[in-house]
Amino acid sequence: MLVIGEKINATRSSIKDIIQNRDTSALLQMAHKQAAAGAGYIDVNVGTGVGSVEDEMDSMRWAVRTIQQDLETPLCIDSADPKVLEAGLQARAGRPAMINSTKAEKEGLKKVVPLAKKYDSLLVGLTMDESGIPKTAQDRLRAGEKIAVACAEHGVPLKNVYFDTLVMPISTDVKQGLVTLETITKIKEKYPDAKTVLGLSNISYGLPQRGRVNAAFLQMAIYAGLDGAIIDPLDKELMGAIKTGEVLVGKDRHCRKYMRAFRAGC
Amino acid sequence: MLVIGEKINATRSSIKDIIQNRDTSALLQMAHKQAAAGAGYIDVNVGTGVGSVEDEMDSMRWAVRTIQQDLETPLCIDSADPKVLEAGLQARAGRPAMINSTKAEKEGLKKVVPLAKKYDSLLVGLTMDESGIPKTAQDRLRAGEKIAVACAEHGVPLKNVYFDTLVMPISTDVKQGLVTLETITKIKEKYPDAKTVLGLSNISYGLPQRGRVNAAFLQMAIYAGLDGAIIDPLDKELMGAIKTGEVLVGKDRHCRKYMRAFRAGC
Repeated sequence: MLVIGEKINATRSSIKDIIQNRDTSALLQMAHKQAAAGAGYIDVNVGTGVGSVEDEMDSMRWAVRTIQQDLETPLCIDSADPKVLEAGLQARAGRPAMINSTKAEKEGLKKVVPLAKKYDSLLVGLTMDESGIPKTAQDRLRAGEKIAVACAEHGVPLKNVYFDTLVMPISTDVKQGLVTLETITKIKEKYPDAKTVLGLSNISYGLPQRGRVNAAFLQMAIYAGLDGAIIDPLDKELMGAIKTGEVLVGKDRHCRKYMRAFRAGC
Repeated sequence: MLVIGEKINATRSSIKDIIQNRDTSALLQMAHKQAAAGAGYIDVNVGTGVGSVEDEMDSMRWAVRTIQQDLETPLCIDSADPKVLEAGLQARAGRPAMINSTKAEKEGLKKVVPLAKKYDSLLVGLTMDESGIPKTAQDRLRAGEKIAVACAEHGVPLKNVYFDTLVMPISTDVKQGLVTLETITKIKEKYPDAKTVLGLSNISYGLPQRGRVNAAFLQMAIYAGLDGAIIDPLDKELMGAIKTGEVLVGKDRHCRKYMRAFRAGC
């Protein structure tokens, strides 16, 4: 299971301050902590919501260069703007990267998918289109198919694509958990080479004991075939849940990772 | 999800004492506690391992009559001996009952399955045969098929059958979790009317933090389609895990059961 550390995201005010103040040591600390906790990729989202696209491109370059001077862990370049994505990918200068993300809509398929080819990077593909997040697994698969077609056109191999089957709060529609899980199964059936990924915490919005709900959903998703999760790697309950899920689906030979996580307090 | 309370089992020494001493108040307390905690059926296993079959039949009659004088909750008559099963079923005198269990082997198919017809009771069918617990889901399904054939011969409808797909410790073979889960899926595909059930705690044998492993496996099984669990209903972590699992697969309209379990401290 690939853990993508989600903490460097400028929609959080503490990160916004770090980005705006170019606070190198705080940024590095946030990156190091996530890597030490088991993040295989570190997400970098510098969209503070103020300033121009050029400002955001500058921030992305600064953040990427700052982190990679000090840390080998690959980065996940996260922006809704293709220009900001490219600024981050350029700053990576050939080091491994992931693009977060494209949707199945014109702009993304035309501008973001080619970046995955040009920079030989992984790509997160959201299974949604112009009209929003589909309500059924069938329609989410259809959005995924559009992305797969664009990837084929632009020469991006599906083994490099992480389809995000999207998580909606169970408290507003109890069928939405199944829709997300069934989309994972459908994607894996249709594209055995492709990967799947989820940002998780939305599932438990509006419920008490959110940690338990997130952990349970993650474990069901692991059984459904999930390959990656965009989460807070400092959340020991969730990291423990991953190890527990993996041991139960036979992905942890001799239970070694589970035992290691247990000894590390997860 | 049908919870079958497992605590009245004379392989536990405290229960053995209750059975041998005909301790009515202790037996009733154990039954009431489980019913109050959410058990839909209460398992009754009086096999103390000493004495004759006739002694065990007597014990079963006593236990069944004692509990049902005081409690409406249906009972799950649990024995490896068809005579003890029938003694318990007779004592139920037409009240709802479940038989725990038959295997896919001659003795059970010939003597236990007809009891389910004769007493119009539910039946737990273990997906194993004379040669033990099959190592693959395909072979467990095959054992289930033998039970289904016997049920058809004897006029037991499959909606009354709970197939137990059997749980082995993940610590001795990491593939065994998937075998159990895949057998659930295969049984539900082949026999949409039939139910599935698991005794759970074996999965975590030999691992630390067993409660977490049990809860995670239960949640995966709920996603796979599990209908019942033979567990300790006083285990709040596990009962909370059931409510969490059910809300995530859309079986808890408006999240009401989850909220109630949360308020009850689960």
